[in-house]
Amino acid sequence: MAKRPHVVIVGAGFGGLAASRALRHVDVDVTIVDRNNYHLFQPLLYQVASGLLDPSAIASPVRTIVRRSPNVDVLRAEVTSVDVAKQQVKTSTGTLDYDYLIIATGSVTDYFGNQDARMHSTGLKDLSEALALRSRLLGCFERASLTTDSAARRRLLTFAVVGAGPTGVEYSGAVAELIKHVLPKDYRRIDFAEVSVVLIEAGERVLATFAPRLSRLATRSLERKGVRFILGESVRAVDDHGLVLDGGERIETTNVVWTAGVRATTPPDFAADALGRAGRVKVTQSLHLSNHPEVFVIGDAAAAEQAGAVLPMLAPVAIQGGKYVGGVIAARLTGTSISPFRYHDKGTMATVGRGAAVAQIGPVRINGLVGWFIWIFIHLLYLVGFRNRALALWSWAWNYFFWDRPVRLIIAPSADGQSSPPTAGPGR
Amino acid sequence: MAKRPHVVIVGAGFGGLAASRALRHVDVDVTIVDRNNYHLFQPLLYQVASGLLDPSAIASPVRTIVRRSPNVDVLRAEVTSVDVAKQQVKTSTGTLDYDYLIIATGSVTDYFGNQDARMHSTGLKDLSEALALRSRLLGCFERASLTTDSAARRRLLTFAVVGAGPTGVEYSGAVAELIKHVLPKDYRRIDFAEVSVVLIEAGERVLATFAPRLSRLATRSLERKGVRFILGESVRAVDDHGLVLDGGERIETTNVVWTAGVRATTPPDFAADALGRAGRVKVTQSLHLSNHPEVFVIGDAAAAEQAGAVLPMLAPVAIQGGKYVGGVIAARLTGTSISPFRYHDKGTMATVGRGAAVAQIGPVRINGLVGWFIWIFIHLLYLVGFRNRALALWSWAWNYFFWDRPVRLIIAPSADGQSSPPTAGPGR
Repeated sequence: MAKRPHVVIVGAGFGGLAASRALRHVDVDVTIVDRNNYHLFQPLLYQVASGLLDPSAIASPVRTIVRRSPNVDVLRAEVTSVDVAKQQVKTSTGTLDYDYLIIATGSVTDYFGNQDARMHSTGLKDLSEALALRSRLLGCFERASLTTDSAARRRLLTFAVVGAGPTGVEYSGAVAELIKHVLPKDYRRIDFAEVSVVLIEAGERVLATFAPRLSRLATRSLERKGVRFILGESVRAVDDHGLVLDGGERIETTNVVWTAGVRATTPPDFAADALGRAGRVKVTQSLHLSNHPEVFVIGDAAAAEQAGAVLPMLAPVAIQGGKYVGGVIAARLTGTSISPFRYHDKGTMATVGRGAAVAQIGPVRINGLVGWFIWIFIHLLYLVGFRNRALALWSWAWNYFFWDRPVRLIIAPSADGQSSPPTAGPGR
Repeated sequence: MAKRPHVVIVGAGFGGLAASRALRHVDVDVTIVDRNNYHLFQPLLYQVASGLLDPSAIASPVRTIVRRSPNVDVLRAEVTSVDVAKQQVKTSTGTLDYDYLIIATGSVTDYFGNQDARMHSTGLKDLSEALALRSRLLGCFERASLTTDSAARRRLLTFAVVGAGPTGVEYSGAVAELIKHVLPKDYRRIDFAEVSVVLIEAGERVLATFAPRLSRLATRSLERKGVRFILGESVRAVDDHGLVLDGGERIETTNVVWTAGVRATTPPDFAADALGRAGRVKVTQSLHLSNHPEVFVIGDAAAAEQAGAVLPMLAPVAIQGGKYVGGVIAARLTGTSISPFRYHDKGTMATVGRGAAVAQIGPVRINGLVGWFIWIFIHLLYLVGFRNRALALWSWAWNYFFWDRPVRLIIAPSADGQSSPPTAGPGR
């Protein structure tokens, strides 16, 4: 019996999982490689960072997701290089030979080369960052409640968010609600007039990819929650005590969250001659490298063009790309061909806090409570598994009825899991 | 108006919170000092370590717990020393003057001076340890599924638990179920005959404080789940690759969980002349230092005697002690006196896995499913808040009906919350 073709998928995000699902009943062996053992539902990461959800509500073990796909194996490893000539993927735990390769490595925070920004701010792209942001925000309130120096206190209580795309808007809305409705009950000594959330955007409006009317609605909704806007200004420098805008204004803050940009993250030296804007890999209309039809790139990592424009970095693009590429591989095995990839725009949406969202579905523009219900419905649909759906729904109901964000834990990371020496402190 | 007396409570565990509750309507100002911002429900920590519960189900912010106690303030700080002569507590964030001091600092893992054991094993007393244990166990399965060296693989797949008190028994039962019912579906390449859980106990039986019949029942229940017992042997040495028993036997394992002992954790140099067995502070029958009636010690930190025996390190002892001490302080303010502390034994219990627990309530011995339902009821009663009760109940039902432990995430701690440099890896 001939060995079955081996498909290696790098990345267990939306795209990688969709590809593996499409290959479930195809006569191939599939290996999914990811550095984490879980699939992360990134669109809800800001809910972990703002104390509404526990990590397990938005992260599911990859092995569990592919349980019913007997031809799919999972490897938790870091990809160190790809040799497209030899058809090999080198990882931290060994080398994999492939017949087909699907690069679905997604994107990371882009600091646009600003090393200070990278050093002194936190992105919001993975679980560690979300947990660190939660601890940091609460830690600032703890420190502020003890500080008598009013300048230092204001610095601790100023939360700057750079970038007003969906992540920046959703995170600042959630933080504004945490500050308005929850924390005043816990921090009675703090004068909440000293607390502020500032959303800084280089463009002229928030949610630039949405219709102007929805941008205005989102702005107004955030303003009502107390978010201050600085539009048309980019951040020139960030340090330990604040940031400086291009116009020269300085904002004193110890909390800078950077959501101003993302760039593709591909294996080192992979397709170096085909990298386009934001590090995305240029692909053919069938989503493979032009000189390597067996190497596909999908999702955020790919610069797939359609009607003269590069497709956006959105989950549906990755999902549809993964499904398509699975179909291409299946077709190749049977010697048939398949028409070029066509992305069907299902619309985009963003929450602007409890009970309000903006959505743009084809020509339809929706906002307010109706938008929020659609937003909840769509997100439940894409969350993996019954348990996570139930947990998310429960948390949204909890937030809606009690205005609460209950996961307010400052958890110090323990580097190695070994015990720290006994010192005085917590009770039993 | 005279300044109100200031009560400082060190530790927001069961004892510290009970004391603050008892002082809620008393004419004093209360400050609770804890190094964490949350109260931890330690009896369920093993459920976090074994993938059933998220941290937020067993940890609640202290500030939220005391919201309705206007005379109670919270300080997140480490206590560095206590000056009983000057009536001052020195902390990492400043000095507090007190009129009454309540030391409710609980206990930490005791390695009995065995530095190797401390270096090469993990305790199960705080959230970081529980999360580290979860990641470590899953990481071993990941590594084992790649290892062709069978000795190395067995080492990775041997889980040793030292100490068969309630924590050791509950943790090994939960891990055995995780291994028996959940992980085989995820790790199809692993031969589960190579996986083992070993419970090592220096005494002659597990759950030594329970009736012998319940010990036997617990042993049999754990054996059915596949736990191997080594009784009457203590651990002489632990290294990176295994442990050595007193009798000379070596067990190859990279996973040693140490639940063999706990010792009181009191502020450095506190009451050095009154420290008894396991570092517990000797107190009068009214739970204060004999030469300082304004300094109380309760819970695990105190060696309170009753009927000639020192009270055990159990949550009810801490809770009743806290309540009593609050009453003593209230009585002193009105010039009345109060009779000595009397601990009412409410019984003890331990789960031995899904649907089975042993309980000992006065003369009554209960086991099996009935014991489990009582165990659930009691634990729900003591968990803080409606949300945590609902989450815990939901998780137990989930576990009961689906035999599942869903929180199987390996989360790498991020030391500072800053972004790591972009490398290839996870999808979006």
